Amino acid sequence: MAARTIVVVGGALAGPTAAARARELDDHARIVLVERNVRVSYAVGALAYHLSGEVAAIDALDREDRGFFEAFYRVEVQKETEAIALDPAARTVTLRRRGPSGSFKDESLAWDALIYAPGAETIRPPEVAGDNVRPLRTVGDLEAISAALHGGARRFLVLGGGSFGLEAADGLLRGGAEVTLVERGHTLLPRFGDHVSAAVLRALSAKADVRLGVTAVSSEARDGRATEARDGRVHRVILSDGTTVDTDWVVLATGVKPRTSLLAAAGVRLHEGGSAAIDDRARTSAPGIFACGSCVAVESALTGQPVWWPQAAIADKTAQVAGANAAGADERLFPFTGSMLVRVLDLAVGRTGASWEEARATFGDVARTLVHARSNDPFFPGAAPIALELIWSRADGRVLGVEAVGAGVDKRIDAAAAAIAARMTIEQLARLDLGYSPPYAAARDPLNVVATAASAERAGLGRSITAREVRAGTYVLLDVGTERAPLPGARHIPITELRDRLGELDRDASIVVCSGSGRHGWLAVRILAQHGFSDVHNLAGGVSSLELTS
Amino acid sequence: MAARTIVVVGGALAGPTAAARARELDDHARIVLVERNVRVSYAVGALAYHLSGEVAAIDALDREDRGFFEAFYRVEVQKETEAIALDPAARTVTLRRRGPSGSFKDESLAWDALIYAPGAETIRPPEVAGDNVRPLRTVGDLEAISAALHGGARRFLVLGGGSFGLEAADGLLRGGAEVTLVERGHTLLPRFGDHVSAAVLRALSAKADVRLGVTAVSSEARDGRATEARDGRVHRVILSDGTTVDTDWVVLATGVKPRTSLLAAAGVRLHEGGSAAIDDRARTSAPGIFACGSCVAVESALTGQPVWWPQAAIADKTAQVAGANAAGADERLFPFTGSMLVRVLDLAVGRTGASWEEARATFGDVARTLVHARSNDPFFPGAAPIALELIWSRADGRVLGVEAVGAGVDKRIDAAAAAIAARMTIEQLARLDLGYSPPYAAARDPLNVVATAASAERAGLGRSITAREVRAGTYVLLDVGTERAPLPGARHIPITELRDRLGELDRDASIVVCSGSGRHGWLAVRILAQHGFSDVHNLAGGVSSLELTS
Repeated sequence: MAARTIVVVGGALAGPTAAARARELDDHARIVLVERNVRVSYAVGALAYHLSGEVAAIDALDREDRGFFEAFYRVEVQKETEAIALDPAARTVTLRRRGPSGSFKDESLAWDALIYAPGAETIRPPEVAGDNVRPLRTVGDLEAISAALHGGARRFLVLGGGSFGLEAADGLLRGGAEVTLVERGHTLLPRFGDHVSAAVLRALSAKADVRLGVTAVSSEARDGRATEARDGRVHRVILSDGTTVDTDWVVLATGVKPRTSLLAAAGVRLHEGGSAAIDDRARTSAPGIFACGSCVAVESALTGQPVWWPQAAIADKTAQVAGANAAGADERLFPFTGSMLVRVLDLAVGRTGASWEEARATFGDVARTLVHARSNDPFFPGAAPIALELIWSRADGRVLGVEAVGAGVDKRIDAAAAAIAARMTIEQLARLDLGYSPPYAAARDPLNVVATAASAERAGLGRSITAREVRAGTYVLLDVGTERAPLPGARHIPITELRDRLGELDRDASIVVCSGSGRHGWLAVRILAQHGFSDVHNLAGGVSSLELTS
Repeated sequence: MAARTIVVVGGALAGPTAAARARELDDHARIVLVERNVRVSYAVGALAYHLSGEVAAIDALDREDRGFFEAFYRVEVQKETEAIALDPAARTVTLRRRGPSGSFKDESLAWDALIYAPGAETIRPPEVAGDNVRPLRTVGDLEAISAALHGGARRFLVLGGGSFGLEAADGLLRGGAEVTLVERGHTLLPRFGDHVSAAVLRALSAKADVRLGVTAVSSEARDGRATEARDGRVHRVILSDGTTVDTDWVVLATGVKPRTSLLAAAGVRLHEGGSAAIDDRARTSAPGIFACGSCVAVESALTGQPVWWPQAAIADKTAQVAGANAAGADERLFPFTGSMLVRVLDLAVGRTGASWEEARATFGDVARTLVHARSNDPFFPGAAPIALELIWSRADGRVLGVEAVGAGVDKRIDAAAAAIAARMTIEQLARLDLGYSPPYAAARDPLNVVATAASAERAGLGRSITAREVRAGTYVLLDVGTERAPLPGARHIPITELRDRLGELDRDASIVVCSGSGRHGWLAVRILAQHGFSDVHNLAGGVSSLELTS
């Protein structure tokens, strides 16, 4: 049999991963990697860490260059080359190589297998366009923004408050910039719940000018002219509330869309929204064409349905399977949980599984439980707060989602991702023996704590209530704290005196118990429930939840 | 119905946890907590962190004292009181309260439910006994050893190289002591595999005098007399190899046994070895008697069989279930994975699931895969090495155990514990989307990496070999590194030249490929396998495995 030709369309993370994996499987194949830009292999999610100064050299983000792939993997790398057409029936791809001064050369290349991995692209708002307006998606973007930052630009406007916008803002702030962040929604990190979003907002607002609930409606160049025609540099951005932001640079984090126009033109099946449809072998609807990376939808471990989560950890997994199978293997994907981590200044933020809205839409009778705990054994020096919210099914106790903010977030998100992928229940998670050692965790890990609280609620031992629900209703607030100043507006009976002072409370009132972290509040709920109080709730996450989201 | 009486036997971690949980369920019960010592609530595993100086005040380890339990939980705490007899038929327990100058008073207490949680006790070697010989199991032990350390004692002999011995040695070394550690086995941390044990040995040997494969056979007081009769202070310990250790203090970490004599005397069922037999509701064979903590065996998630793992994370879980059920609930335990973490100087060490020997004994056809990786994205500052070993079943791909040493160990052990508890396969673990963000992890987490390597081996794409197996056999070592000095005694063909220099190698030879971390070794194995070489192995974990275990 003649050696097969495998063409990989797209560099960055997925394409090079797939090419390397294909080579491991087939040392005889001709493997061609095509990338539009100059840089072949880098992680989109890593770019902000050069702006921050933490990764000093851009080359450190791009160590596996063309020479590396040729020397180690014998992969032919065609840089500055764009795939412009795909013919599934003829099994060819048309490549356009850009030359100096706008010249180009087209070439048709036949393949036995093609791996499509061009990723996602930023949705550019037409209202804000100019030479100093860029997303942060490629090393070229990074070079331009970094040159500006080190060349005297001070004021940076980040459009978008999702994870990419926050990473860009974090990198710019660490790099010494003045940052304004504009988000159209009313919270940062829209997929996260109130608590995490509020914590991030508080942290970021201390260092940056954060504008929520507004969009950019137009922009002006230095001379006051509109810049829509890309004929200048944006100097001022006008927002939908009439306010303006004067800025030296604009970083676009306004959302991305899958880059699948070639597949669409070739009649390959896409999902609504444009992501590529693949099966669990990373095969598209066209024989011989595999797809991977941030342009494909994958199966959700929550719903079994295809979801488009443009995240590097998922891109890596789909790329491995696409690469191996393009070279003749028969590997499988498994459903994904959508884990993500974001660092925002001193906060780590993470989530995995379904968001609250997704869980409600899909599973109906769901609940959420929030606790505050410590990242390691509380007596250990450096034990820092972590807030964990667990989203779970009342019907079968299944763990549906976990969100976290604080210290040690990455660890809990990973363990939760495994639990969710494996369809664990809250009762099982409550009893899981996670690793204990004082420098790393308490004997009852925060994940156990939140699952224990959820299990107790599922068993009917008590109910918790969110800060938002408290503010929306009419409740008697009962602060049972022993060491804090009492919460303003609340009745204050320390937990240590509660049993002796039950007569001071109305047994028919709707009572919300507040304590520092929620732990003693839970005990108070249990005491009241056993002494004839019928409508008692524990404030989820304790008083800091009220303060944070007020 | 009259209020029930619940008696909890044993303080430290499990008893207080069970008492608090019982109170949450039943606010009307009389709950009595009985503890032999002065201190009621502390974690045995936390004591070494006062010796190290990290936890400055002993009281920080014992914040929930008798007053706390009485005020918050209305639990009657009887300190310095020992349960000396149990009558399951009459539902009574005899308590002995020690008074001043050796006096005592016995009292019989009737219970509706009894929670038995006295923990485990150190097996004391009769050959080494004296006033300066103690385990580190109670706050009293800690006070004595700490007083010695701060009172001028310099030389400490730790007997036992398991996790407790290593934690004690770590604490003493950080506290400024000179430490000799004696372990009867030929490795430290006997449940761990070669690689982790060797890494710990190397780290500890740089700071302490470590003696392996020997035991203490006798001891002498300062005047040269034998000290067996506890009539003095041990000054010199004589080892089985004829060498001696002069010391100021001896810390016993010579293993523990479950403290179940009361149950045995009362006819309650025990397992071989003396651990208490409980069902998944934490019930013993005697109606009304529950047991929890370090004296009970629990169900292994690996085998379904009862195992005795005296670990705090497990003690906590059994205590919660025992406490709730003693108060009338119907909660369940789930099988345990036996996760553990140990900090030894700058190393974090962890394991979960079956050890290699356990896996072989139970599952027969098992394999292990070792990789070296980085704790977070390799380009990120502070990315530090982690070695991960995965133990898996060749029959069904099930993940059986994970061991780790290095940075970020706690995170991978927790995710692996969830994967093992949920019976995940190596193929699923390879594709699990763990959280990605450069400060916390790469897009392909080290757990993915080791599971990917194992999956490739299971798919027949190549074989790995351990450093021990390499030394026991006759192999041609082929170093394919590109940036290191070649391994002494190995053929050296850089991976970048391998395809062009295949003619220099004998296709019938038994070849072991070595690379820095094992990654390029794997690629070389794939190249050779596809070019007519039939007996090729990859050195698991790369050249550092050979260096570490030599």
